[in-house]
Amino acid sequence: MMKKKSEKSILPGSPNEVYSRLEDLGIDMVKDIDAGVSPGFETASRGRSNVKFDESVGCLRLGDRKEERTFVNVGQAKKFMQTVAVANKCKKFLKEGSHTSIRGLFYQLKFSLGESVDEELFSDQSESNPLIEDIETAISVKREDLNLYTDRKGVVAGPMTIKDKFGSEETTIDCRKQGRSGYAIPSDVDNGINFVDVEADYVLVVEKDAMWQRLNEDGFWKKENCILVTPKGQASRGTRRLIRKLASKKLPVYVFTDCDAWGWYIYWAIKAGSMNLAYLANDIAIPEARFIGVTMRDIKEYSFLENLTIKAKEVDIKRAQEMLSYPWISKHEAWVEELNQVLKTKRKIEQDALQGPRLSFVSEYLKEKIHAKKFLP
Amino acid sequence: MMKKKSEKSILPGSPNEVYSRLEDLGIDMVKDIDAGVSPGFETASRGRSNVKFDESVGCLRLGDRKEERTFVNVGQAKKFMQTVAVANKCKKFLKEGSHTSIRGLFYQLKFSLGESVDEELFSDQSESNPLIEDIETAISVKREDLNLYTDRKGVVAGPMTIKDKFGSEETTIDCRKQGRSGYAIPSDVDNGINFVDVEADYVLVVEKDAMWQRLNEDGFWKKENCILVTPKGQASRGTRRLIRKLASKKLPVYVFTDCDAWGWYIYWAIKAGSMNLAYLANDIAIPEARFIGVTMRDIKEYSFLENLTIKAKEVDIKRAQEMLSYPWISKHEAWVEELNQVLKTKRKIEQDALQGPRLSFVSEYLKEKIHAKKFLP
Repeated sequence: MMKKKSEKSILPGSPNEVYSRLEDLGIDMVKDIDAGVSPGFETASRGRSNVKFDESVGCLRLGDRKEERTFVNVGQAKKFMQTVAVANKCKKFLKEGSHTSIRGLFYQLKFSLGESVDEELFSDQSESNPLIEDIETAISVKREDLNLYTDRKGVVAGPMTIKDKFGSEETTIDCRKQGRSGYAIPSDVDNGINFVDVEADYVLVVEKDAMWQRLNEDGFWKKENCILVTPKGQASRGTRRLIRKLASKKLPVYVFTDCDAWGWYIYWAIKAGSMNLAYLANDIAIPEARFIGVTMRDIKEYSFLENLTIKAKEVDIKRAQEMLSYPWISKHEAWVEELNQVLKTKRKIEQDALQGPRLSFVSEYLKEKIHAKKFLP
Repeated sequence: MMKKKSEKSILPGSPNEVYSRLEDLGIDMVKDIDAGVSPGFETASRGRSNVKFDESVGCLRLGDRKEERTFVNVGQAKKFMQTVAVANKCKKFLKEGSHTSIRGLFYQLKFSLGESVDEELFSDQSESNPLIEDIETAISVKREDLNLYTDRKGVVAGPMTIKDKFGSEETTIDCRKQGRSGYAIPSDVDNGINFVDVEADYVLVVEKDAMWQRLNEDGFWKKENCILVTPKGQASRGTRRLIRKLASKKLPVYVFTDCDAWGWYIYWAIKAGSMNLAYLANDIAIPEARFIGVTMRDIKEYSFLENLTIKAKEVDIKRAQEMLSYPWISKHEAWVEELNQVLKTKRKIEQDALQGPRLSFVSEYLKEKIHAKKFLP
């Protein structure tokens, strides 16, 4: 049985490296069979109880618990076979240099294996996720490295250029010249994507697309020399990796969301990662990120906000309570105060409220808070 | 009371024209007040019973029924005032040359009107929609012309260049040079956007983003000299307007979706418009569009598909029955056959199934069908 090569980074560096890790996985199974033992491999347990907050890095990651996947096990045999078939297909995609979705992968399997493919297992991404994640964790790669598309979402504009080596061509994208649209963040920002001449002073992440468009129209990123990103709600894997890569270039990352359940979730998922993606750990988390707002304490500074708060919903109250129960959040006094203020007043504030006095006010607010370094941790 | 100027196109041509229509709306109300009558205006009834299929054009549009909005009416007074306040804000946005979302608009109103703004009325877009639609239909403009963002979605690549006059700058976007990402279709493709050097032979609309990425990777639009669009599911207003504008340049439009409830809906909404957007009629519908597939009859030609069909869900069955009840669909024998085939077999086919034999097969399929002109109407 192949042991997880934990000394390897989850970032394999090149498609050749991924290819050989897949090959090794197969070779080890053949060796098992030759030796007369059940072929199998080891993967990290991704159950909730094996997700820990790593204080030293500041992100959620998997603990040490491992699980075995093996052929000679009545409960696992079919799933095991399908996992091997998935690994085999991904190896083929890498060789061809072509990509597909998990749905495309399903039909490739169904075409070659016929009736033995469990339709239900692939009926949506959450069902087939465990198979792909088994492979990702077993050989320490991301699914993007296996030439599988993930849902892409989010746009970016600002002073940087991206070189996109795509098929046989290389395209240069100047993120200063994308007009009202911005550059659509791809599914995979590692393989074949290079960030050149990143000349910004910081990265500003804005929850809502309409707010991003507002700031883009105001020329915010030009005036402030920053990179303006919107995840369009919860951040996709591609958007998180993009922010992660910019943070690794020592750019400060500031996040601007609603002061509510969804906004806080978006921030903390960007900063500390999430339960579901704990297996990607600090390759996707950005512990350096800081929270700009909107905050309840903003009301002190910007008194007009008092009249623009709205009633907190049950989900906001529940989320605030939940967050207070996470030690990695409740250790920050500023967050405790903030969440308690929501629990006490049962009010919340949306980022759009900052457009109340005038549409351009939101730019003024952001500049003031960023330059005075008024962040929550 | 101002009568709807029905001779005017819904496309006003310039922000100045929109501005003066808003001004006229206000002037007429002031005249009403001076004359001692209740200020009001006339708008088209947008109820389902006033939506008709216009055979001469081939799209859903509003009938002749009008409705009055007036101040001196207990049931309407508050809504009427808010509509006037919305029109006033939009006039300001036009003067400033800045845009915002409906949410941003809500906070502008809340800031200036305080407690008299009905929070619930603006609590989500569907609640505030009627107010905006009243103004859109009363003065024959689109909300995009009122400097309001709509949800944007969808990407495009292919042989054309877009000039984006955005604020004080003009950006040139070459849709041949957008790499793996494509060009993100803006909310508004009319005001300040010009399509220059459109050198394509046709437009291909592909339901799913992952399939779009697959075809983009295969260089489909280069080999075929076409414009490759994905609405990413149901088409946004911006994406429909973009396709509409390309169709008006005499480019044939082919649509490629799943053979299921959702796929058919996407096609028919692109082609004939939808109930909700019937007030935009042929400014948003593309009656010229043709359906490539996937179709049940494809199984005859591509026999491997037989094994790659999946079980139709209740929603698919219900939708097929519903479609057969629409005269503008059931008049097409090919569609009747197609839908009956689904009802009979209770099977459906996804576009991803065409990746079964090999990932690039979907390109071969599309080329064959387009060149042999095997479309459904």
